[in-house]
Amino acid sequence: METISKFEVRECDLAGRIGRFTVRGKTIETPNLMPVVNPNIVGGENAVTPVELRETFGHDIIITNSYIIRRGDRLRERALDEGLHKMLDYDGMIMTDSGTFQSYMYGSGKGKEVDVTPLEIVAFQRDIGSDIGTILDRFTVPSSTWEDAKQDLDITLDRGSRSLEVMGDMELAIPVQGGAHMDLRELSGRSVREMGAAYSPIGGVVPLMESYRYSDLVDVIVAGKTGLGPSIPTHLFGAGHPMVLPLAAALGCDLFDSASYAKFAQDGRYMTRDRTRHLRDMDSFPCSCPVCSRYDPSDLKEMPERERAGLLSRHNLWSLRGIMNEIRISLKEGTIWEMVERSASYHPAMYSAVRRLEQHKGYLEESAPRSTRRFMCSDLTLSRCRPEFQRFTDGVGSYYQTPDHGRTMILTDWGRVHSTKVEEVLKRASSSGDWVVIRTPLGPAPYDIEDMYPVSQSVFPQPGSLPDEVMEDIVSSMEPIRQGSNGEMVHWTGVDDPPGIEGAANEASFLALKVANIVRMQFGIIGGKGADEVLFGSWDTTRELASRLIIKRSRRTGKIRNVMVPGPDGKEIHLLSLRAEDGMFTLKIEGARRLHGAGSGWRVVVEDETGEYNAQGYNVFCKFVRSADENIRPGDEVLVVGENGDLFAVGKATVSSRLMLEAKAGVGVKVREGVKDKKAPQPFSP
Amino acid sequence: METISKFEVRECDLAGRIGRFTVRGKTIETPNLMPVVNPNIVGGENAVTPVELRETFGHDIIITNSYIIRRGDRLRERALDEGLHKMLDYDGMIMTDSGTFQSYMYGSGKGKEVDVTPLEIVAFQRDIGSDIGTILDRFTVPSSTWEDAKQDLDITLDRGSRSLEVMGDMELAIPVQGGAHMDLRELSGRSVREMGAAYSPIGGVVPLMESYRYSDLVDVIVAGKTGLGPSIPTHLFGAGHPMVLPLAAALGCDLFDSASYAKFAQDGRYMTRDRTRHLRDMDSFPCSCPVCSRYDPSDLKEMPERERAGLLSRHNLWSLRGIMNEIRISLKEGTIWEMVERSASYHPAMYSAVRRLEQHKGYLEESAPRSTRRFMCSDLTLSRCRPEFQRFTDGVGSYYQTPDHGRTMILTDWGRVHSTKVEEVLKRASSSGDWVVIRTPLGPAPYDIEDMYPVSQSVFPQPGSLPDEVMEDIVSSMEPIRQGSNGEMVHWTGVDDPPGIEGAANEASFLALKVANIVRMQFGIIGGKGADEVLFGSWDTTRELASRLIIKRSRRTGKIRNVMVPGPDGKEIHLLSLRAEDGMFTLKIEGARRLHGAGSGWRVVVEDETGEYNAQGYNVFCKFVRSADENIRPGDEVLVVGENGDLFAVGKATVSSRLMLEAKAGVGVKVREGVKDKKAPQPFSP
Repeated sequence: METISKFEVRECDLAGRIGRFTVRGKTIETPNLMPVVNPNIVGGENAVTPVELRETFGHDIIITNSYIIRRGDRLRERALDEGLHKMLDYDGMIMTDSGTFQSYMYGSGKGKEVDVTPLEIVAFQRDIGSDIGTILDRFTVPSSTWEDAKQDLDITLDRGSRSLEVMGDMELAIPVQGGAHMDLRELSGRSVREMGAAYSPIGGVVPLMESYRYSDLVDVIVAGKTGLGPSIPTHLFGAGHPMVLPLAAALGCDLFDSASYAKFAQDGRYMTRDRTRHLRDMDSFPCSCPVCSRYDPSDLKEMPERERAGLLSRHNLWSLRGIMNEIRISLKEGTIWEMVERSASYHPAMYSAVRRLEQHKGYLEESAPRSTRRFMCSDLTLSRCRPEFQRFTDGVGSYYQTPDHGRTMILTDWGRVHSTKVEEVLKRASSSGDWVVIRTPLGPAPYDIEDMYPVSQSVFPQPGSLPDEVMEDIVSSMEPIRQGSNGEMVHWTGVDDPPGIEGAANEASFLALKVANIVRMQFGIIGGKGADEVLFGSWDTTRELASRLIIKRSRRTGKIRNVMVPGPDGKEIHLLSLRAEDGMFTLKIEGARRLHGAGSGWRVVVEDETGEYNAQGYNVFCKFVRSADENIRPGDEVLVVGENGDLFAVGKATVSSRLMLEAKAGVGVKVREGVKDKKAPQPFSP
Repeated sequence: METISKFEVRECDLAGRIGRFTVRGKTIETPNLMPVVNPNIVGGENAVTPVELRETFGHDIIITNSYIIRRGDRLRERALDEGLHKMLDYDGMIMTDSGTFQSYMYGSGKGKEVDVTPLEIVAFQRDIGSDIGTILDRFTVPSSTWEDAKQDLDITLDRGSRSLEVMGDMELAIPVQGGAHMDLRELSGRSVREMGAAYSPIGGVVPLMESYRYSDLVDVIVAGKTGLGPSIPTHLFGAGHPMVLPLAAALGCDLFDSASYAKFAQDGRYMTRDRTRHLRDMDSFPCSCPVCSRYDPSDLKEMPERERAGLLSRHNLWSLRGIMNEIRISLKEGTIWEMVERSASYHPAMYSAVRRLEQHKGYLEESAPRSTRRFMCSDLTLSRCRPEFQRFTDGVGSYYQTPDHGRTMILTDWGRVHSTKVEEVLKRASSSGDWVVIRTPLGPAPYDIEDMYPVSQSVFPQPGSLPDEVMEDIVSSMEPIRQGSNGEMVHWTGVDDPPGIEGAANEASFLALKVANIVRMQFGIIGGKGADEVLFGSWDTTRELASRLIIKRSRRTGKIRNVMVPGPDGKEIHLLSLRAEDGMFTLKIEGARRLHGAGSGWRVVVEDETGEYNAQGYNVFCKFVRSADENIRPGDEVLVVGENGDLFAVGKATVSSRLMLEAKAGVGVKVREGVKDKKAPQPFSP
């Protein structure tokens, strides 16, 4: 079946993502913001035209209101006659809204509706050639009781399923409602997904934003998205204030609309990413857009009102363009958290909203990539919601099951290990069987996995400048390690040699231990054994382990590159390669075979028929994925297997397992090596 | 004596200020940033020219290097021949550096110097027509021992005083050095001031910034500025990274130089206010300056290197212009703290630096205005360094000396009192003699002074989203009040009526109490009496007080406007007016007379001769101020008195008492009414 629209997730960061959304042959990149075009004002003096929105500001999607068009005789006739695109002189993607917001703004409360039937307005949108129409849903205000909200929701869902019948070849937006009742928001999202909707706005949120209830907005988005799942492009209706955009994008909102650029301009207000200011309070511009680099505030103050509003609208559009670009850059480089943390400083209500993420750590973790670039934590009371923290604690839990360790030594402060002398001492201690632990805000970090994400990729404030509660948590996070150690605990400041560390470091033992520990941190416990034992066989001492591994290092940096084991007739069997950027392993096909044989959990099950292609090295498309282990996250090494359990290939997951299962388009696994790849080695069992 | 330069502080915010700096007839607004112009590159292909810096980017001050000019035969001859301004084709203000930084960069450490004598380079700068020359100071690195740093400092100070002899009509910059030794930094600043320098850069800080030691930079700035005092325009040498600028400006740095715009551009780096990115990592621009709105990253990537660097330089300059404009806007509107708090999220090292302000609260308080507009506290672990917090605690201390109070009632959460019903209940309780206290992050806030700055002007996150340590401090701040109360403590959530509050509110008593309490909070205790008793006479009950006051309220808002007392022959004597924006009083001349008569501490003592002008309503210039009470801060109501103790006028302080005493230019007090003002009433004693 040819679908009307297609949504592919290309890159992920937290619950946010870079996507490509295609409707009727037109494609836009998400997250994206559609300026609201008032059909009554198009062509008015000094008003921004749709063609200017596209050509000057680069907007390839706009939104306008079908209810307003339909209400005016002249506009209605023109739209039906010429079609919406010609009427607006705009050849990009056009979404239309339905009149729901008008029923909220101008209606006299519950029961009062606009003068058009739900199916009439959908048919009208279809007939004027809208690319994405919207159903006439019921706008449920946050103060609604559960019962009222449920009744509204039932009506919305009923209208949604009936509207799907008349949508024609237009894509149809079915909003999530439910007021401030999170169970209803989730139910609403789930029902919309199960109904087969391919686009969903989160509605009824403007009253929350108008009263700065951003924390509640966070709950509403998370509940709605939990119901909708990650595969449906999600629009946050009416989120025009720039300060909320990074957080909403990080939670997985893909589209935004903004009338604020024009509304603020009419009020003489000037937008920046963190706030708005009234023009009368400004004597210079903190921006250098084409408006601000040409005019001074005094110039604008002297202009006729319309001309001023026209220029302010354009500045506001440049400002929004900058914010949306920065959001996309941040999602691509894996720094959307940093942008969110920054937005916490924009307003106390935004701070509260970012703090609210504490309650949604699981939601964020579900779709966040396993590793990113270097990341920065400034306010640790906020940054501790990053998935890295919980994941590291869980991962280190399995680390401390290592058999071959004796006494614990603790380095007090993070950021102190990067001197040659300190490294030498630590290496000695570690290779002689001690636990060498660095105290970090992530938790106690074993020295030998310090190169592995996230320890050396994270940047924290100085220890002395942390809030007390963070410092107390860091101190108490050491306690389980202390109790689990076999001997004394040495606090070492990194200045003098610690006591009891004698002899030279055994480089080979140290490297072997490092490989084993990274493997176990990364792939976990498989069938009761550490993944290291699965790959290399059981071992009792690091010396024994070291004798079994062939570790190739970079000549230039000395860092581990490839891990092999001896094979038959003197050949080396390549199992793993280490990625420099995050210190984690990629699997070679023989490594994958060994994990698979032991019953590894990193499986993506595909239809046998398409699996044959993967076996030849082609990527896995989400629509062919039959099942996937729940713990798979973007960036994970995964085994591509058939329904009968055969291993087809090894590769890297592009998206989380849930998205892989629910998405109808896009790549789920980038295959690195297939079992029938010409370059892949043939199976061998040790 | 005609001075070469003049520095006037116009507006203050924290320790930062808006100033006007005039050198040889050219005036610039501060804070300001001077781009570094490399004399070897001026006129080079794609290089930004000085005239472009002025005309396109609005830079009315630049800095170039006299040592480099002097080293090259051709440049030296041209500079001596044509003069610096003609050579650079720039008619704004030009500062020159001396070669000190070159001795640090290229010298082989201590003792190694450039090949010019200290007096030669000063004379050369004078001869080529530099507006501000710089002495050849000793660049002291942060790792210097105290002894070495002291020796360097002695040399610098000796060169400084000798250079003052040869500076001619050029202004001379004498830097603060002292390495990482704060006693030496302070000594250095004090010595520079006592030597009579009119311009001082804080030097030797580039190594701190290069290694992200921003916390140490904060200490160095505060120590240097403490020595220099507030009257000398202060330049932070080499602070080109944009993220450090708001914090440095908030600490009182007035001038910055930046070579970074060009250096980053040469490395392909793109500056934004919070960081730099390499062009290769960008596929869109988060800015809309004339460069970024015309080109895409892909365009720049394809260009020849010089052309690309030229465009990146220009983008970086637009970016710096935006940041400097925003700093000035923030200082003017009183929101520089918010900008500093935002910069804490730019990098963990910046977070540490902002946290370091905890140790410099006294320094910030010394020059911060008494009130500002609505202010926002997002991260309270940081915002608690704002002067509002300590001042409020101190002020409330005197509040609780009110005689006429009984039982304590506590409202749990801030932000709950703004409903009509809640206000009515609180007013009833308050006017019947209870202590009604709102628990806020500022401390326990008495309900009747809730309109007075800073209680209702502050915006905080929701109670539930505060870090534990902040919430614990808020809870424990209530304890002294509880202990001081005469009866039971009632925790009231604002829902049902609290027990024991009966009868209607006595509006007159409530208003009178409010006036008395604001007066005592604002003007404190004078000669053992509350300022309210000084103004209105002693009182035992609010009823008694109310019978004595004539309180005029706004018809529209119902808020207090003017406070009068009955005078002879039925006339009313106007003592106070209430400012709507901060809920504090301005003094009328008769109010001032009463406070003065009781020995009030808000005195600015001026020369008798000039005091006669103030008595006629003219402003007080700093240079005529003989002494000023130490507690005077910008915005305070002050009594202008003569050396013999006569009251001349009442007005509003523009700057703190220290600046009033040390400044050689600018207005110290804006006089509102002088005793010989035609419109002022004649003296009357009650």
